[in-house]
Amino acid sequence: MDEPVLLTGAGGRVAEAILEGLADDYEWKLLLHSPPTEEPDHEFIVGDVTDESTVREAVAGVEAIIHLAGDPRPEASWESVLTNNIDGTQKMYEAAVAAGVDRFVYASSNHAVGAFETPDRTPEMYRPDDDFLLDGTEFPRPGNHYGISKATGEVIGRYYHDEYDLSVCNVRIGNLTRGHPPIDYERGQAMWLSYPDCAHLHQRTLEADYEFEIVYGISDNDRKYYSIERAREALDYEPQDNSAEWDGEQKVA
Amino acid sequence: MDEPVLLTGAGGRVAEAILEGLADDYEWKLLLHSPPTEEPDHEFIVGDVTDESTVREAVAGVEAIIHLAGDPRPEASWESVLTNNIDGTQKMYEAAVAAGVDRFVYASSNHAVGAFETPDRTPEMYRPDDDFLLDGTEFPRPGNHYGISKATGEVIGRYYHDEYDLSVCNVRIGNLTRGHPPIDYERGQAMWLSYPDCAHLHQRTLEADYEFEIVYGISDNDRKYYSIERAREALDYEPQDNSAEWDGEQKVA
Repeated sequence: MDEPVLLTGAGGRVAEAILEGLADDYEWKLLLHSPPTEEPDHEFIVGDVTDESTVREAVAGVEAIIHLAGDPRPEASWESVLTNNIDGTQKMYEAAVAAGVDRFVYASSNHAVGAFETPDRTPEMYRPDDDFLLDGTEFPRPGNHYGISKATGEVIGRYYHDEYDLSVCNVRIGNLTRGHPPIDYERGQAMWLSYPDCAHLHQRTLEADYEFEIVYGISDNDRKYYSIERAREALDYEPQDNSAEWDGEQKVA
Repeated sequence: MDEPVLLTGAGGRVAEAILEGLADDYEWKLLLHSPPTEEPDHEFIVGDVTDESTVREAVAGVEAIIHLAGDPRPEASWESVLTNNIDGTQKMYEAAVAAGVDRFVYASSNHAVGAFETPDRTPEMYRPDDDFLLDGTEFPRPGNHYGISKATGEVIGRYYHDEYDLSVCNVRIGNLTRGHPPIDYERGQAMWLSYPDCAHLHQRTLEADYEFEIVYGISDNDRKYYSIERAREALDYEPQDNSAEWDGEQKVA
């Protein structure tokens, strides 16, 4: 990639995983919501995604955007996700197409489809021998207002792709934890995304050729109920991790 | 139905078709955006769906809601659909579940899937011998901001159904015209919805047993590229009209 990549929500955990793995691979431009406590290693802007001048400044001169900004709390209020996630994502897309950005990677979420985890399917669906699998083509089924906002962000991306022809990849991010998978939490183990796999996946979203994609962002967990086939096919995603290889905090396989 | 049915957007064209066919079949409660020019035959409230006290008053004591209110213009701005359609629909659902409403019928739109009409498919897809058919299970593909808002309303309904167990039916309304189908407009003829079929379809959404549905609201047009099979199966929809039976303003079959 010749031009910088804008990373919004650059103070968050997904950004941390991406920058740990890919700091030196791209020229990063960070959009931070709050002033950093220590000086970042990359160019940065502080501001809000709902502020049009901030967004315009952020997208200027970038070739691709990884849009992570928004209220990340599953329990976020409707008012917050309407503004920060839905309106904020539309404003980011609008600025991206105005600036001629080629590629937009959107941090969607497992919460966009959380209500598939019905009482009659759980906890069996979190286990290796259960064959329930979502492939990403399903109509969204959010389990909270945050999930509604993430599904809406995917729909917004569908529109901007069709109308303006920029490449759009929606990553329904699972349960990202540093080091070991979640402990005593089957659901989290089923949708675990390791830091290295998170960085690798986002590297693929910046490198692969695609039009519009919705992929699941998880490691290759035995327990998974999200298919990673589309990520493999469309992005050449090759995850290295699997929560089944861990016993608590120890890697055993 | 023992209790009243709330009809929002009651000053619009879809409401006109519904009330022409079903005025005497239900006890209607109308929510109007503007004061009526002549006294309605039914109980009515004047107010905005984004005003919580208006919405609370509107849903009080009703058994079902047909939610038509919103900015109906395909060319509506993002700001308008964000407020009137997305936020307005969420507020209506929130009030509905708080009031214990059993059934929520949502006026979605062909614009939620308008971008399936790609240059390489049109105008062939509008013609009787073309077999392209959308069945309502597809991931949304809006062609404008209005369409984004309508698809988002479907996702909002999915959440409220799953979380609160009220019955939700989304009707992707085609091209509603009184009397004859659109003239010299193949797309409009393909997705024509006659006034009688519109009223009948909404009668079925108020009577049939269902959980969560997305159906296309069109007549049984030879030219159709929206399947009406799901409406037939889930709602016992039996349309009487077909744009192919018309030559301009004259019915010929």
